[in-house]
Amino acid sequence: MVKNDFYSQENVGPYEFYHLGDFELEDGGIIPDLKLAYRTHGKLNSAKDNVIVVPTWFSGTSKDYEAYIGVDRALNPDQYFIIVINQIGNGVSSSPHNSPEPIAMANFPNVRIGDDVRAQHQFITEKFGIEEIALVVGGSMGAQQTYEWAVRYPDMVKRAAPIAGTAKNTVHDFLFTKTLIDAITSDPGWNGGNYSSHLEVAEGLKRHADIWSVLGLSTEFYKQEKWKLFGLETVEEFTEGFLQPLFQSFDPNALLTMGWKWQRGDVSRNTGGNLEEALGRIKAKVFVMPIDEDMFFPVRDCKAEQELIPNSELKVIKSICGHFGLFGAEGTDYHNQIDEYLNELLAIKVAETISE
Amino acid sequence: MVKNDFYSQENVGPYEFYHLGDFELEDGGIIPDLKLAYRTHGKLNSAKDNVIVVPTWFSGTSKDYEAYIGVDRALNPDQYFIIVINQIGNGVSSSPHNSPEPIAMANFPNVRIGDDVRAQHQFITEKFGIEEIALVVGGSMGAQQTYEWAVRYPDMVKRAAPIAGTAKNTVHDFLFTKTLIDAITSDPGWNGGNYSSHLEVAEGLKRHADIWSVLGLSTEFYKQEKWKLFGLETVEEFTEGFLQPLFQSFDPNALLTMGWKWQRGDVSRNTGGNLEEALGRIKAKVFVMPIDEDMFFPVRDCKAEQELIPNSELKVIKSICGHFGLFGAEGTDYHNQIDEYLNELLAIKVAETISE
Repeated sequence: MVKNDFYSQENVGPYEFYHLGDFELEDGGIIPDLKLAYRTHGKLNSAKDNVIVVPTWFSGTSKDYEAYIGVDRALNPDQYFIIVINQIGNGVSSSPHNSPEPIAMANFPNVRIGDDVRAQHQFITEKFGIEEIALVVGGSMGAQQTYEWAVRYPDMVKRAAPIAGTAKNTVHDFLFTKTLIDAITSDPGWNGGNYSSHLEVAEGLKRHADIWSVLGLSTEFYKQEKWKLFGLETVEEFTEGFLQPLFQSFDPNALLTMGWKWQRGDVSRNTGGNLEEALGRIKAKVFVMPIDEDMFFPVRDCKAEQELIPNSELKVIKSICGHFGLFGAEGTDYHNQIDEYLNELLAIKVAETISE
Repeated sequence: MVKNDFYSQENVGPYEFYHLGDFELEDGGIIPDLKLAYRTHGKLNSAKDNVIVVPTWFSGTSKDYEAYIGVDRALNPDQYFIIVINQIGNGVSSSPHNSPEPIAMANFPNVRIGDDVRAQHQFITEKFGIEEIALVVGGSMGAQQTYEWAVRYPDMVKRAAPIAGTAKNTVHDFLFTKTLIDAITSDPGWNGGNYSSHLEVAEGLKRHADIWSVLGLSTEFYKQEKWKLFGLETVEEFTEGFLQPLFQSFDPNALLTMGWKWQRGDVSRNTGGNLEEALGRIKAKVFVMPIDEDMFFPVRDCKAEQELIPNSELKVIKSICGHFGLFGAEGTDYHNQIDEYLNELLAIKVAETISE
């Protein structure tokens, strides 16, 4: 196991672990004693019908959603029991750098979006006895998991809001993620996944961050010098002073585990490759929420999927930050849009709730 | 000097050299006996007013414009004297791998767009006695040179058509180019620029190609599986079978020389940083021709510059291939658009031609 303080509770906020026991993976292999790190906000009501599940994005942790949650937000802990779940391999839940042999570091198995959602399902049913989810919402890889939830457990998921992500990863996205992966694995310090500190992979992580700087924002973000949204004065402060150190703080193998998973996110694995059939299974009311300036989950890709979902609407979020709009640097300009749509979605009565 | 058959006339078509003597560079230093490789199509008329200058793009050579030139095209050699000029450092004109000491390989000096255009100006005035250019047209870095021509020699350039490029490189583009550069320089085989064969940098060039695969095309290109336009059956054939070998055939230092130059292309260097003043100097009739799906020279960036050019119009080219639309893989669907606009531009009477 490799030490990395980034994932400490001091840094990423409080979380608890749920132990799932030995967990079999879709691609074969087992994670012995799989641990999911989660954080809850609010209380489960007696009808157990006020549950919101929030899965994390690439490189993200449960901390990243703190700004989405509050008594004056749609994700209101006074009203809902919000469970933010760290995806497998994110550095907090069971991950290469925090797992013992036989799955430590380079030996960590391949994990798929479907594994995450099955594990999350096992966790919330076993731990809380939850049978109904009012809303699954997540950004980016969180959107991938959101879609997987809605397809895999159509009777359980009443509403779903995938933000800035797709149900079936695109070929373009696969290639983009490949460049992110290669930036790390090409660093001799990565050493086939067996480094003794993530600091040995600093150069690869820096290049990884630099590729994010190109695709993660938008051309207009740079044109309008919007790094000021992040409280920074110059583009160098944004790239070298913020993005590079941020990505250099992550565990390289965690990013690779998530990258591999992201590349292969595809709900049509549930239906023999038929995306229309998979999305057609969804019973939830779905708001598909792409970001208008997203360079790799473009609105048109998300719209094409939305049109295959029976009870769905397209709600486009405006953010000059592109995909990194998810970070919420625009403050209320961003979060008010999210809240407006999530409030609208949560207010919609859905048929056949188990509690009725 | 390092051998690389890619740049042979057998491969990139016929070219001739013009020797400019020792050439002083904007950033200091000299290229001793600078050689510009060029190819002409058609004949210079007696009035010397039928000249079209075509500068090359990043990684490109004079061969790349062959499909743009023909008796049934706007760039008609029966009518015009078309001079296609290989930019400095492109691997054919004076470049790191083909230059002797003291500027061989890692010692090759930094070259700017302004150096190219001054060299091209010296070449065509000395060699052909040209005082008037009917049209400067070029794609990508060719567009950067086109803008530089129009700003630097406003009385000489009567018409200009920058395709898929900008007058002042954007911050986003700078960062994108940085990832392309870093993919090469991070390869231990690059060895600080002193390799004995470009094959030693194959891994870095592969990653360089992979980044191009993400930004060079468009999300819709992949969505619609348009690699068929390149005569290829699968995306693997397109990326691993076409793009990777293509970029692996180039000289790494040539790409770095061009990348450095591309990052710093900026006509406002002529006006103390005032872009409006620089573009305001242009006397040519200008058609600004971005490609609608271009991911890094987006239409809005090009439009913002066009609006600063007195006698200009925006003509958007449609290509699902994005920036690589320039390759012309769409055949007549692409070239007919280029021809339509160039024919329209060439048909416009311009004031004060020297020959009148």
